[in-house]
Amino acid sequence: MILVLKQKATQSEIEGLKKNLQARGLGIHESKGENTTIIGLVGDTSHMSEESLLANPVISKVMRVNEPYKMANRKFHPEDTIISCEGQKIGGNNFAIMAGPCSVESEEQIISIAEDVKKSGATFLRGGAFKPRTSPYAFQGLGCEGIELLKAAKKITGLPIVTELMSITQLEFFEDVDIIQIGARNMQNFTLLKELGSCGKPILLKRGLANTVKELLMSAEYIMAGGNENIILCERGIRSFDNFTRNVLDLSAIPYLKKVSHLPVIVDPSHATGLAWMVPTMSKAAVACGADGIIVEVHNNPQEALCDGEQSITPAEFDKLMNQVRKYLEFEGKII
Amino acid sequence: MILVLKQKATQSEIEGLKKNLQARGLGIHESKGENTTIIGLVGDTSHMSEESLLANPVISKVMRVNEPYKMANRKFHPEDTIISCEGQKIGGNNFAIMAGPCSVESEEQIISIAEDVKKSGATFLRGGAFKPRTSPYAFQGLGCEGIELLKAAKKITGLPIVTELMSITQLEFFEDVDIIQIGARNMQNFTLLKELGSCGKPILLKRGLANTVKELLMSAEYIMAGGNENIILCERGIRSFDNFTRNVLDLSAIPYLKKVSHLPVIVDPSHATGLAWMVPTMSKAAVACGADGIIVEVHNNPQEALCDGEQSITPAEFDKLMNQVRKYLEFEGKII
Amino acid sequence: MILVLKQKATQSEIEGLKKNLQARGLGIHESKGENTTIIGLVGDTSHMSEESLLANPVISKVMRVNEPYKMANRKFHPEDTIISCEGQKIGGNNFAIMAGPCSVESEEQIISIAEDVKKSGATFLRGGAFKPRTSPYAFQGLGCEGIELLKAAKKITGLPIVTELMSITQLEFFEDVDIIQIGARNMQNFTLLKELGSCGKPILLKRGLANTVKELLMSAEYIMAGGNENIILCERGIRSFDNFTRNVLDLSAIPYLKKVSHLPVIVDPSHATGLAWMVPTMSKAAVACGADGIIVEVHNNPQEALCDGEQSITPAEFDKLMNQVRKYLEFEGKII
Amino acid sequence: MILVLKQKATQSEIEGLKKNLQARGLGIHESKGENTTIIGLVGDTSHMSEESLLANPVISKVMRVNEPYKMANRKFHPEDTIISCEGQKIGGNNFAIMAGPCSVESEEQIISIAEDVKKSGATFLRGGAFKPRTSPYAFQGLGCEGIELLKAAKKITGLPIVTELMSITQLEFFEDVDIIQIGARNMQNFTLLKELGSCGKPILLKRGLANTVKELLMSAEYIMAGGNENIILCERGIRSFDNFTRNVLDLSAIPYLKKVSHLPVIVDPSHATGLAWMVPTMSKAAVACGADGIIVEVHNNPQEALCDGEQSITPAEFDKLMNQVRKYLEFEGKII
Repeated sequence: MILVLKQKATQSEIEGLKKNLQARGLGIHESKGENTTIIGLVGDTSHMSEESLLANPVISKVMRVNEPYKMANRKFHPEDTIISCEGQKIGGNNFAIMAGPCSVESEEQIISIAEDVKKSGATFLRGGAFKPRTSPYAFQGLGCEGIELLKAAKKITGLPIVTELMSITQLEFFEDVDIIQIGARNMQNFTLLKELGSCGKPILLKRGLANTVKELLMSAEYIMAGGNENIILCERGIRSFDNFTRNVLDLSAIPYLKKVSHLPVIVDPSHATGLAWMVPTMSKAAVACGADGIIVEVHNNPQEALCDGEQSITPAEFDKLMNQVRKYLEFEGKII
Repeated sequence: MILVLKQKATQSEIEGLKKNLQARGLGIHESKGENTTIIGLVGDTSHMSEESLLANPVISKVMRVNEPYKMANRKFHPEDTIISCEGQKIGGNNFAIMAGPCSVESEEQIISIAEDVKKSGATFLRGGAFKPRTSPYAFQGLGCEGIELLKAAKKITGLPIVTELMSITQLEFFEDVDIIQIGARNMQNFTLLKELGSCGKPILLKRGLANTVKELLMSAEYIMAGGNENIILCERGIRSFDNFTRNVLDLSAIPYLKKVSHLPVIVDPSHATGLAWMVPTMSKAAVACGADGIIVEVHNNPQEALCDGEQSITPAEFDKLMNQVRKYLEFEGKII
Repeated sequence: MILVLKQKATQSEIEGLKKNLQARGLGIHESKGENTTIIGLVGDTSHMSEESLLANPVISKVMRVNEPYKMANRKFHPEDTIISCEGQKIGGNNFAIMAGPCSVESEEQIISIAEDVKKSGATFLRGGAFKPRTSPYAFQGLGCEGIELLKAAKKITGLPIVTELMSITQLEFFEDVDIIQIGARNMQNFTLLKELGSCGKPILLKRGLANTVKELLMSAEYIMAGGNENIILCERGIRSFDNFTRNVLDLSAIPYLKKVSHLPVIVDPSHATGLAWMVPTMSKAAVACGADGIIVEVHNNPQEALCDGEQSITPAEFDKLMNQVRKYLEFEGKII
Repeated sequence: MILVLKQKATQSEIEGLKKNLQARGLGIHESKGENTTIIGLVGDTSHMSEESLLANPVISKVMRVNEPYKMANRKFHPEDTIISCEGQKIGGNNFAIMAGPCSVESEEQIISIAEDVKKSGATFLRGGAFKPRTSPYAFQGLGCEGIELLKAAKKITGLPIVTELMSITQLEFFEDVDIIQIGARNMQNFTLLKELGSCGKPILLKRGLANTVKELLMSAEYIMAGGNENIILCERGIRSFDNFTRNVLDLSAIPYLKKVSHLPVIVDPSHATGLAWMVPTMSKAAVACGADGIIVEVHNNPQEALCDGEQSITPAEFDKLMNQVRKYLEFEGKII
C-alpha cells in the first residue's frame, strides 16, 4: 500500500503517522520528492481501510498495490480450480452446460424440459423455485414444491440441479440441491455469503448489476474465508445507459477473471441480453472468451412462461445452439 | 398497458392474442394504423409481466401506462405520510436530523457522540452495529453489543435510534431499535423486505447503487404490501463512471419521489459523497430540494474510525452544519 | 407514434390536440380506456420531437413505434451493404482486418508495421495522423506529414489506408485517404457528419463512449441523409462504473446492429479493452458475434509508442491473433 | 508520478527503466518493499502518458500524484477567476442568470422572451441559433439569422448574448456574440477547443454526458493553453441507468470544481432534468451548492417550441423561480 502525503504535512505530523503505522506492525519505506512525500507500507495491509486512512489529515492519496482478495487470487493458487459435482466437472478444460426454465412451473414442465435439454447435451438442470421479482405482485416461484419437482426431474434424467437461494432461512430446503445459485441482487448480501462458507456445496455466484469484478471476487472471498472454496463465478450483464439489451454482457470479464483468479467463470447470456434470439450468438462468444460454461434459459412454451419469457429459447433452439457451441468448444480444446 | 403488434401479425394470430387477454379478465381496445395494430388493455395489469408479453411472437412492444406500485403511489394517497417515532415526526413539514458514527465502537464513543449531536440539534441517533463490509477481513461491527450500546446512548440522551439490519436472522435483536435501516445492498433482498411487512417499526429504505427510483418504490411496495406502511425512502448516491465522489448524489430523485409518492424522503450526503468536507454543502442542497431529513455520519475522531473515516465529520463540524441547515429549513417552512 | 393522454385532460383539450396533429398531416386513431385516452398517430412522424409533444399539458407519455432512422434501417434495405474500397470489400461475408499503430511516428515505423501486418493477413492499414488527446500537453500526431507517411506505406504494401478526421478543416488533406475514421468523441459532431454526407469516401463511424446504438444509427443517418451511404459502424467500448478494462466492449451491439441495420459493423478490441493481452481473445469473440471486421492496434515497440502503448500488440502477436481468427472465420463462413 | 514495478522485474530491467526515465529529465526515488519496488518520479510529468508507461513490461501500476491540468488548477491560481462581460460579472460573489429559449424561432419570440426574463432579473440572454440535434430530420436552428435576432434582442434589452458554436466554420458569425457556448457533445472536440484558445471571448464549456470532471478541466486547459483564460464551466447532467430525469444533475461537481479550480461554475437545470417543473427546485439547489450562475430555458409557449419544449418554463414561472433564488443568494452572500 502506498500513501501519498499532503504537501502541507509537517515533519512532526509525518513522524506521528509513521509511528501509528509501525504500531500496526507494518514496515515503512519513505520517499521524499520535491513537493511530495510518499510512504510505502510493507506487510499485510488487507485489513486496512483506504477510507480510514484518507480521513487522516496528512494523507492525500492511497494506492493499493496488492489485491485485497487472497483465497480467490491466482497468485497464491496458480492452477485452475476444478469443481466436481455429481460426476460432472466445471473448470480446467471442462465446460458446463446448465439449462432449464426461469421458473419451475409444474412437474410435467420441468421433466419435459429436463429430458429435452439432456438430449441436446446439457450437463446440469437449472430452474427457479424461489424467485426474486421486482414486484410483490408478480409470481414468486413455487418455493419448496419447486425444489421437489427439480429433484423429480433429476431422478429421471440424472442431471444435477442448480437453483437459487434467496435467504438463509431457505437453506434447510436445499439439502438435495447440487449447486446453490446466489443471484445478482444478493451478491453483496454478506450475512448470506458468510453462511455459505460453512456449506459444503458448490456456489454459483452471480455478478451484481453494478458490481465491479473486484467486488465479485471479494464476495467469493467471503465464502472462501468461511471454508467453502467451491465457487463458480458468473457474468450476467451489468447496467448501462443503453437498453437495447436488458443489461450489457461484459464478456471481457471472463479473460480478466480467469487471469486474476483460479475460480471457474460461466456466462448467463439469457439474463444478460433478455433477448432469446441473441442467446445462441452470445453463447458462442462466451466460449471464444474462455468461459467455463453457460447457463441458459430454456422453456417449452416461452410465451406462456410465468416469468422472463422474452429471454427463453425453446428446446429446439437450444439443440441448435448446442450444435454451434460444440464446434467452438472443439476449437478451444474444451470438453462437455 | 399498450401492446404494439408486429407488422407481420396475421388476423388469426391477433384474434388468438385477444382471446387470451380477455380470458385474463382484461378489456381490449384495438386500434389499426397504416402498418401497425395497437391493443390497449383495460383493467388491472399490475401483475402482468412485460417480459412474458414480449415472448409472444405477435407483440413487438409493450408500454405500461400506469405505475406498477400502488400503495406507495401518491395518486391513491394524496397526503404526505408522516411517520411518528418516539415523539419525533418525519414527513410533512417535519425535518429529521439523524446523526452518529458509521460504527458503534465503544460505550464512551457512542454516548459522547450522541450527547454532542443532540446538543447541536439532531433528533435521531444513527450508528452501525451490524456492518456490511466489502471485505471479509474488515471490521464487521460489534453486532448485538453495538445495539446494547445504542440503547445506553438513547437512555441518556433520549434520541431514538436508527441502525442497519442485514438479515432476518438478526431481527430478534432489533426489538428496541426505533427505526430499522435497510442498506443499499439489501434494497432488493426480497425475502427480507417481505419479512419487514409484518414488523411494526418504521423502515429506512436506502436506494441501491444501481437501482432506479421506480425499483426503490417497488421495494417499498413489497414492505407495504405486507402491511407496514411506515417507510422512509433514502437517496444515498448512485454509481457512475466518475469517481471524484464515491457515488453521485442524485438530488433530483427527491422532488421526483415526493411528486409520485407520499412517503418521506431523506438524504445521506456522507455515503453519497464519501467526502467529509462536502457533507455540509450537500445537506443544504438536500433541504433546497425538498428532502424530509438528512442522515449524517459524525465521529469524534474520524481518522481513528474503524470504518468510513473519510466521510465522517466531527461534532464541531456538525454543529456548524446545523446552523446553516436551520436557515434553509426556515426558507422552506420546515421544522425540526 | 402513440400518445397517452393525461387522465385530467378535458374533451375540449383533446379535440384541440387532435386538430393540431391533423394540421400536421397526421392521421389519428383514438382509443378510450377506463381512465386513459390513447392517440395513435398514422403517417410520417420521424420529424416530430418527443420532447415538444411532452410539453403539451394534455400528453403524459409518448411511445415511438417506428425507428427514427430510415436510410440505415434494414426494414427498407433488407440486403447487407457491402462497401468496396481499393479492391477490398467490407460487409456481407467479407471480413475486414484493419491493423496498424495508434499514431504514425516515422516513415520507418509505419512502413515496417505495414509490411508486417500485411504479411500476417491485414487488408487495411490503420494509423493516426491527427490525434484526439485528452491533454493539450500530449503528443497530437504528425498531422499532414502523418498522412504522407501512410500514403508511402500504401505505395509499398498496397494496403488501403484508414485514418481519423477530427475537423472539417482537415478534410482537404484526406484526398488520398481510403476510409475516413470518425472517432468516438466526434460521433455527435453534427456539423462534421453533415459535411461527410457530400464526401464520396467510406466512413468508419465509431460509437461514442456513452452513446446508445440508436444514437449511433442516427449519426449514420446524418451522413446518409447527405448522400453518402458507405458507412461502417464500429463498436469500441462504452463507459461504465468498472475500470478493469478501459471501457466495456459491448459485443451484443454487433448482432443487434446487424439485425436492425444493413450497414457493416466492425469491432475495435484495442481501444475498448486498453489491454494488449486481451485483444486476441476479444477479436475471436467479435467474429463469434458476427462482426464484419476488426480494427487492431499493432506497434513494433509498444513500450516506446508515443500513445496508447498499453493496448498495442506486437507484429508477432498480431500474427498469432490472425491464425486464431482465421479458424473462427472459417466456421462462420466469412472470408478475408 | 509513482510507478509500481512488477514483482518479476529483474535488476537489469529496473536499471534500464531508470536510465530511460532520467533521460527524460526526471528525478527518481526508488523504494524497495518486500515484494515490490516503487519508483517515484520527480519533475514535470504532465506530458507523460500513463498508457505508454503501462506498456513497459516492467511496470504494473502508475499513479499520478499531481493533477494533469495546470492553468485551470487552483493550486497555481488561488483566487477565483471573475469574468467580465458587457458590464456583467461571473465568478467570485457574482451570480449570473442566463435565460432564454432553446432555439431562437422569430424576432417577435426572442424579443418578447428577452424583455420578460430581463424584467425578472436575468443578466444574460441565451438562445440557440445553431442547434445540435440527434436526428438529421429535426429542426436545426435558424443559423446566422438566429444570431442576428439575438443581436436585435440585445439592442433592445441590453442583455449580453450566449449562444452555441458547433464548428470552427461558424466562428466568423460569432463576432457580436458575448459568450460562446460549447455544448456537451463538443466538450472533447479538441480541434475546436484549440481554436478557441486564440479567441478573446468568454467560453461557456459544458460537461459532456459521460465525461469526468477531470476531463472537463482538461478541456478547459486546452482553451487556456491557447491563451484564453475566460472559461465558465457548466454542469448539465450525466448519463446513468435511470431515466426519470433526462440526465443526472451531478451537483457535487460544483463544490468539487470550485475547490480544485479557480474557474466559475454554472448549472443548467433545464437540460439536466428535461422536466420544466423540476427547474426551479434544482436552481435553488445549485445556489446551495455554491454555483456561480444558472442557465435556464424559458419559452413563451413551451408546447409549441420547435425543440425541447418539455424542459422549458414560461416567463411567469421564471419570475417565480427568480424570487426563490434571490433569497438563497442573499443567504449565500452572492449578488446578481
